[in-house]
Amino acid sequence: MSKFWSPAIHSLVPYTPGEQPKVAGLIKLNTNENPYPPAPGVSAALHSFPSERLRLYPDPDAGRLKQALAEDSGLETRQIFVGNGSDEVLALAFMAFFRQNAPLLMPETTYSFYDVYCDLFDIDYRKIPLDQQFRIDLAHYRTPNGGIIFANPNAPTGIALGLDAIRSLLEANTETLVLVDEAYVDFGAESALALVNEFPNLLVVQTFSKSRSLAGMRIGFAFGHPALIEGLERVKNSFNSYPLDMLAIETACAALADRDYFVATCQRIVDTRESAAERLTALGFNVLPSSTNFLFARHPDIPGAELMSYLRSHNILVRHFSKEQIADYLRITVGTDDEMDALVTTLARHPELSSKLSA
Amino acid sequence: MSKFWSPAIHSLVPYTPGEQPKVAGLIKLNTNENPYPPAPGVSAALHSFPSERLRLYPDPDAGRLKQALAEDSGLETRQIFVGNGSDEVLALAFMAFFRQNAPLLMPETTYSFYDVYCDLFDIDYRKIPLDQQFRIDLAHYRTPNGGIIFANPNAPTGIALGLDAIRSLLEANTETLVLVDEAYVDFGAESALALVNEFPNLLVVQTFSKSRSLAGMRIGFAFGHPALIEGLERVKNSFNSYPLDMLAIETACAALADRDYFVATCQRIVDTRESAAERLTALGFNVLPSSTNFLFARHPDIPGAELMSYLRSHNILVRHFSKEQIADYLRITVGTDDEMDALVTTLARHPELSSKLSA
Repeated sequence: MSKFWSPAIHSLVPYTPGEQPKVAGLIKLNTNENPYPPAPGVSAALHSFPSERLRLYPDPDAGRLKQALAEDSGLETRQIFVGNGSDEVLALAFMAFFRQNAPLLMPETTYSFYDVYCDLFDIDYRKIPLDQQFRIDLAHYRTPNGGIIFANPNAPTGIALGLDAIRSLLEANTETLVLVDEAYVDFGAESALALVNEFPNLLVVQTFSKSRSLAGMRIGFAFGHPALIEGLERVKNSFNSYPLDMLAIETACAALADRDYFVATCQRIVDTRESAAERLTALGFNVLPSSTNFLFARHPDIPGAELMSYLRSHNILVRHFSKEQIADYLRITVGTDDEMDALVTTLARHPELSSKLSA
Repeated sequence: MSKFWSPAIHSLVPYTPGEQPKVAGLIKLNTNENPYPPAPGVSAALHSFPSERLRLYPDPDAGRLKQALAEDSGLETRQIFVGNGSDEVLALAFMAFFRQNAPLLMPETTYSFYDVYCDLFDIDYRKIPLDQQFRIDLAHYRTPNGGIIFANPNAPTGIALGLDAIRSLLEANTETLVLVDEAYVDFGAESALALVNEFPNLLVVQTFSKSRSLAGMRIGFAFGHPALIEGLERVKNSFNSYPLDMLAIETACAALADRDYFVATCQRIVDTRESAAERLTALGFNVLPSSTNFLFARHPDIPGAELMSYLRSHNILVRHFSKEQIADYLRITVGTDDEMDALVTTLARHPELSSKLSA
């Protein structure tokens, strides 16, 4: 606390990211990173980059990256925005679109940064409960609002909505922005990218952090009507002219260029996820149906916090949220087959589970 | 314009950065970049970086970089904040400290991003004129305020204040934050870093973009009392957990490690600046005394905009601001000796100047 802070800062409760451990040798299944390295072209781009160019400012518009995303998505560059991770893209979108005279609607359980942005930018919001199966029910979002945001697939549940549900919402909600946060979409959900040309109030946000294995480089992007992109650019250019450094642009372009590698690693993760989900179910876990690179699972007899500590004591990191509705659950990133094998084997040795399994 | 924008967005006038030309072969003296490459260790760090690590998130606290800055500055890591360029550090500081019930004070002529931040964050501000010699007079800042910001050396004038003037201001102004933006300090001014341990309301912001030749990597930082740094961290962690990517941290640490290179390149730029200032003066220009890596100069007979176009037609880019008080001036980045020679030679051939010089 300090008398020099802006008054609003005193009540902020910042977002807490998952631990980035400083010690080696841990199995890290806590922050939904990709277990596979970025495409080989990324290494080549990095290691051949002429470092003398770094004395110059980057292209403030990241034109090369927008061009590459346009070719990949089939949209035009004026329908594309890029930023310093999808967190920054989201933060700028909250400023650009959600400071309205009606509350922003969001799921009760979702990415926990959304309400932090609301507090930072003084945005009123209303949380809408998930259904009994932890699903988003968009029928409950048809009330007056200053905007709608949800993650699809949702986090930390991992459950995806179909495009038909999103289309229905967009048909009913035409006066305010609908933001679909697709950080995990490449692991098995349908992208609302397909609806961008139809609905001028749809903004789709994605990231290079998960499916492109570039969490270390902080690259996010958004697709939407040119007028929405213009709104984002206005805010971005009033905040930071050059959010993407030269090497972020370089590595993102290199990752995007290798579609085969992208498809193959996503598929590998999906396969590992399905077999891990099966083995966890066999251990007695309830595992929600995931369309992401993580599993959200609870054991009916052992509290989530206890399981997290147990795994941590065996050098396996997973994520646990203390929020009441989901406190029983663990969010487990899908690692390599070997890492998931270590996870399942370690869980099977938990005193309460092993006694049951052998009984 | 769009009905989906937040109402406040419609009136924003974003900052306009200097041109980053897409064509080669231009002499680029328009955005105050360093003419020399980053320290040799930067290239080595980049080219040996194991790209497979990029799949992981960076350290959200950029601990290694803070540690390196602590060693370089003699401060503690809890007195240090880092961000995605000093523009982001400034934007976060405006949110953290300047949303008060009294106006922020700033020079009438200074870095033109300051009032853009004020508009974005709805901060009231008051601009205080420079004196007749384009100098900041801090005696005029002793009025009730919600904070004070100025650049030292100031931009685009290039003129530096001494530490005694800043100390006097801090002694008189104890209830609100004083932010000293030192983007150019390494080219000949005294840093207010020396006052950080004495004044709990002093925040000093610096950058790797100019004196460290890393504009392409977007790295800025701030020094201040731990309570000020905590305020910045709260805002940062409510906006974007990981603003610095792995390679920004890596290249910044490598640049900081080579003090000799830093001192030598800064000195080279100072020497070039002084000789270029002398030659411009001989051509009839009024050149303000610069403590930066740029010169701010006007010719009494030729409008600034005309000189800029003339230079551009000879493939030399300089910066011109249309703002009334400084519309006669050009801001000329100090390049290499060869680049400055090309500049002076080209100016000497301007029809109006060459006729005078030969007369």
